[in-house]
Amino acid sequence: MEESFVPLRGIKNDLQGRLACYKQDWTGGFRAGIRILAPTTYIFFASAIPVISFGEQLERNTDGVLTAVQTLASTALCGVIHSIVGGQPLLILGVAEPTVLMYTFMFNFAKDRPDLGPNLFLAWTGWVCVWTAILLFLLAVLGACSIINRFTRIAGELFGLLIAMLFMQQAIKGLVYEFRVPDRENRKALEFVPSWRFANGMFAIVLSFGLLLTALRSRKARSWRYGAGWLRGFIADYGVPLMVLVWTGVSYIPYGQVPKGIPRRLFSPNPWSPGAYDNWTVIKDMTQVPLLYIIGAFIPATMIAVLYYFDHSVASQLAQQKEFNLRKPPSFHYDLLLLGFLTLLCGLIGIPPSNGVIPQSPMHTKSLATLKHQLLRNRLVATARKSMNQNASLSQLYGSMQDAYQQMQTPLVYQQPSVRRGLNELKDTTVQLASSMANIDAPVDETVFDIEKEIDDLLPIEVKEQRLSNLLQAAMVGGCVAAMPLLKKIPTSVLWGYFAFMAIESLPGNQFWERILLLFTAPSRRYKVLEEYHTTFVETVPFKTIAMFTLFQTSYLLVCFGITWIPIAGVLFPLMIMLLVPVRQYILPKLFKGAHLTDLDAAEYEESPAIPFSIAAQDIDVALGRAQSAEILDDMVTRSRGEIKRLNSPKITSSGGTPVAELKGIHSPSISEKAYSPRVTELRYERSPLGGRSSPRTPSKLGEGSTPK
Amino acid sequence: MEESFVPLRGIKNDLQGRLACYKQDWTGGFRAGIRILAPTTYIFFASAIPVISFGEQLERNTDGVLTAVQTLASTALCGVIHSIVGGQPLLILGVAEPTVLMYTFMFNFAKDRPDLGPNLFLAWTGWVCVWTAILLFLLAVLGACSIINRFTRIAGELFGLLIAMLFMQQAIKGLVYEFRVPDRENRKALEFVPSWRFANGMFAIVLSFGLLLTALRSRKARSWRYGAGWLRGFIADYGVPLMVLVWTGVSYIPYGQVPKGIPRRLFSPNPWSPGAYDNWTVIKDMTQVPLLYIIGAFIPATMIAVLYYFDHSVASQLAQQKEFNLRKPPSFHYDLLLLGFLTLLCGLIGIPPSNGVIPQSPMHTKSLATLKHQLLRNRLVATARKSMNQNASLSQLYGSMQDAYQQMQTPLVYQQPSVRRGLNELKDTTVQLASSMANIDAPVDETVFDIEKEIDDLLPIEVKEQRLSNLLQAAMVGGCVAAMPLLKKIPTSVLWGYFAFMAIESLPGNQFWERILLLFTAPSRRYKVLEEYHTTFVETVPFKTIAMFTLFQTSYLLVCFGITWIPIAGVLFPLMIMLLVPVRQYILPKLFKGAHLTDLDAAEYEESPAIPFSIAAQDIDVALGRAQSAEILDDMVTRSRGEIKRLNSPKITSSGGTPVAELKGIHSPSISEKAYSPRVTELRYERSPLGGRSSPRTPSKLGEGSTPK
Repeated sequence: MEESFVPLRGIKNDLQGRLACYKQDWTGGFRAGIRILAPTTYIFFASAIPVISFGEQLERNTDGVLTAVQTLASTALCGVIHSIVGGQPLLILGVAEPTVLMYTFMFNFAKDRPDLGPNLFLAWTGWVCVWTAILLFLLAVLGACSIINRFTRIAGELFGLLIAMLFMQQAIKGLVYEFRVPDRENRKALEFVPSWRFANGMFAIVLSFGLLLTALRSRKARSWRYGAGWLRGFIADYGVPLMVLVWTGVSYIPYGQVPKGIPRRLFSPNPWSPGAYDNWTVIKDMTQVPLLYIIGAFIPATMIAVLYYFDHSVASQLAQQKEFNLRKPPSFHYDLLLLGFLTLLCGLIGIPPSNGVIPQSPMHTKSLATLKHQLLRNRLVATARKSMNQNASLSQLYGSMQDAYQQMQTPLVYQQPSVRRGLNELKDTTVQLASSMANIDAPVDETVFDIEKEIDDLLPIEVKEQRLSNLLQAAMVGGCVAAMPLLKKIPTSVLWGYFAFMAIESLPGNQFWERILLLFTAPSRRYKVLEEYHTTFVETVPFKTIAMFTLFQTSYLLVCFGITWIPIAGVLFPLMIMLLVPVRQYILPKLFKGAHLTDLDAAEYEESPAIPFSIAAQDIDVALGRAQSAEILDDMVTRSRGEIKRLNSPKITSSGGTPVAELKGIHSPSISEKAYSPRVTELRYERSPLGGRSSPRTPSKLGEGSTPK
Repeated sequence: MEESFVPLRGIKNDLQGRLACYKQDWTGGFRAGIRILAPTTYIFFASAIPVISFGEQLERNTDGVLTAVQTLASTALCGVIHSIVGGQPLLILGVAEPTVLMYTFMFNFAKDRPDLGPNLFLAWTGWVCVWTAILLFLLAVLGACSIINRFTRIAGELFGLLIAMLFMQQAIKGLVYEFRVPDRENRKALEFVPSWRFANGMFAIVLSFGLLLTALRSRKARSWRYGAGWLRGFIADYGVPLMVLVWTGVSYIPYGQVPKGIPRRLFSPNPWSPGAYDNWTVIKDMTQVPLLYIIGAFIPATMIAVLYYFDHSVASQLAQQKEFNLRKPPSFHYDLLLLGFLTLLCGLIGIPPSNGVIPQSPMHTKSLATLKHQLLRNRLVATARKSMNQNASLSQLYGSMQDAYQQMQTPLVYQQPSVRRGLNELKDTTVQLASSMANIDAPVDETVFDIEKEIDDLLPIEVKEQRLSNLLQAAMVGGCVAAMPLLKKIPTSVLWGYFAFMAIESLPGNQFWERILLLFTAPSRRYKVLEEYHTTFVETVPFKTIAMFTLFQTSYLLVCFGITWIPIAGVLFPLMIMLLVPVRQYILPKLFKGAHLTDLDAAEYEESPAIPFSIAAQDIDVALGRAQSAEILDDMVTRSRGEIKRLNSPKITSSGGTPVAELKGIHSPSISEKAYSPRVTELRYERSPLGGRSSPRTPSKLGEGSTPK
């Protein structure tokens, strides 16, 4: 993205880009049919459960002024609005942990002021939101999101890991808390005698670990060996909500002398309880706030604005990582503007505002990549079967598959010619490959062309980019407010297990995390890292440098984590991450070699113009130079969404703008000679110039070849 | 084995065979050094924990006449004697569940007889043991073990699975029992109020699942990616005892108001408690048993004799499966004779007798295969490193590795010339392979020859056959009697987890179990079974036949399992398994095609003379006919003992006596042409004719090739 600070230009670009595909955002969603419910339910749970839990936390911290009803309402309201009029529909909005920390701090400040007190607290936060909204408007209009490229991988991944740590911390805290007497309950109740508390704690361990382990297992159901395909698919798609149901069911097994309060369950007022809707009319009280406090509200507002600016943009960025091969443009500026409006709205009706959340937003994209993969796969398998029944030859087969593939492509007005390639390249090379084994014009059968396997290998990572899943999940979160009596049946311990699950689910694909693991990997096993993730830096950067860089980043992370523990200054932690931008730009280049930094943390302002890249496979005779930022292509998707793909060979994505012609050079020479040489396939498209990303994107894929080990 | 019923001939043959390698049985054990402690500790725990638990069960059932002290004493005594003067030192002896069932039945019979009663119970069982011993002598002398070959795979694996079910049943029963008030305890104690009982049960779930999951994980430590090699090796070798320690430690974490009796721990008298040694002088009382009961003792004695004959032989057989490539001869007849003596001894000192146990005996062999692999591997790696430092060429390198390999071979007097081949074939083919990639005479370095990986692929499965590990583990079981105060610190729930662990550990490698899993495998994934286990029957037998056969076997298993539930007739269940011999021989051939039966359950009496076998790999140009009983080569070892080997290609073992010359024919033509064609290696040796196995054994190995998928 260019760094342009001309007022409104960013917003205008965003609007143009997204409007061009707005209709397709809806039609594409509806065309996916019933299958859209898989990512929807997945994200609904990932979104609703933390929000409910944060609501409980907020209730304790604000003496019941705000509850889960308000956090759910905010998440649903903002989610629905954003999914309809927002820019990037992959972005998931919700009330996040930093917001809860902020509101806690503000309540502690307000409750002791005689001229403010708990009664005027919400009115005062209304003013805070007004100021925050103004600041966000300014940031959006002035193009502050242009510097989004300066939030390099190092900042985004550090933030992602920090959120994972906060989630895990909440899981552990919650579990320990199950052994204690809750603050707000009657301490004399039967379930709080030591024996029942101990029993409750042990039961909580069983339930939370049960949920965690089964949920992690269920995500991998697609690659299970046992059970019918539809069952495995169902479990992989709906396993997590299913497990919440199962373990809630298990929590009801003990009967007889076990008191009703064991295990502990969600505590939240029903939305129709008296006092649960005091907040909605808070706008009336806003005039009663003393002027001094109205002005003073500017101070927390700046903190929140900085936090939201960063959090919203990074969540959006993580949902649109290069590995996902998105087709539609980003919308950072316009989304920030909309966030300003949403914050204002929330402030005026007395609910805590929502912003873009991690890890739910990247989880959303990942689940849509799985969806798209399945849709493409089913279509192509059907096409291939049909062709084979008509005794088509291999070239005819690929021809019809190519047509089917094109029909599935998002028809966008700003489409580049390169998009049309798609399966073309795939076809060329696989036909070449196949021709070395069988007669190309003879009718094909399953022995030559193993449909299911071949198609899995052919398909590039694509994401079903649409608005429907976001709208539906937000509406379902809204439904939770009404379903509160049902939600209260979920044991709190299942929540803690779910928090741990979310923390763990967010790790794969985080290169920072993978580098930390690399530090603990025995030297003789480091080659395995290469096999699985294909991370170029392992080959190009000396291990000592990787270790230094990772240790630096880890220390920084621990400092950030430590800051969140400081009672009031804790809210400053986003500043620490903002500080990474100058650190990355001015300090790190003095400590590490430029080439190493580029491989470890590619910053666009450092990238040199396109030079060809080399592939470390001995079978490819044509050396092509050096990759700029070869990255994990699809392991993020693979590893956390079942088994879309698992090839042993490296997958290389270049964002350094390698011309297609050069890439094609590596196909021809050696392939027909060797039965097992890599099948080199590539797929190129350019991100819309409206989106502002300057570098052409050339994800290419080395499928199924076996590089000698 | 020939079926010869000439009196004493079997015993004589066994003695000759084992005496020939007796010295090496000891020297080999000592030469392994400190590493012998890994399999020893592993088997010690697998042996001691069930015996302690059976002792507790026996104590409840016999009103305290027999306790864990007696079961441990019997296991230790019989184990020490068998390891020193026994025939097959891989066989592990112990007090088994069927013995416990038998003694329970006899106690229930005896306690109500006025002229017998609990006081003369042990004296009467002394007479039972006398009769049992006489029957076992007769069976051994008359060569009853000659028909051991009629216990085909179907019977052995069914029995193995039945034992696994009994272990799992014990685990589940034990866990449920943790929620109840134990019979013998003071029902008014604090820890038995409902709340503490519930707490105890939940804690038990945590501890037992904790042990089960971590123990299963730790066994795979060798293939973990993280941690130094020595640490991973240590965890893989000692992980299970380590986890028993860890979870016992965890059980001490709760403090404060938690009563001492939570979690429940082992209950057993110390051996120096009064009354704990009444049994040793039981021989004095034997004359007081009325004559009628002395004669009547013949009836239970026949049941026990049948049970021991079958159990002991099958345990021995499972410990010597073809897949293990054992070098030393079996000793069925002589071991049965010795078992008679041991039963007599145990009867006269009033302790329940021990016999060969499943799954510990095959576990013992597996752990020794791992040990042997490591020893071979370390030696070869060191040799290869040394050669490479001296700038040796590839052929020199293999030459020196070959010498080192030969030095590691068991030097047996009855060795066949074919044994000397060993690594020779491996060398030839790998050199051929390597020569296609690099100059054979140039000095090799790590890029051409990746020492650690190559050597793993080269090594065949071999077992460190010796007596030391058996002696040591038996001695350690004896030490348990003295260490009873320490053992009592182990929570019973950890025991239940351990029972489940043993049940699960015994499953991999059991083809019956794998066929059951195959029934639940989605049709499109069945090829994966082929990839992993290489089970020929999947290719050669129609799925419907496999399903029918497996369903028949499963029903039979369930009937056997059901019989064990019948209070008194339950002891007849070994008869059901004995019945499988005629069923297999006369009924099954009427229901299934001969060729299919041969692939599913090779019985030696049905095997036709050697015909060449074909390999379903398209790269091997020479078709060689059809395999007689190609079987899993090393997956048993691989999958339950870390990662000795994991090659993607099928490994084929033929027991049908394929001449080496024919096998060799498949090497030459295609290998040097293709970089990725399979490396065909083979290793042939004949089991000592003294051992009586008639068919030459030709385990061959298709290493590292990639058959087209």
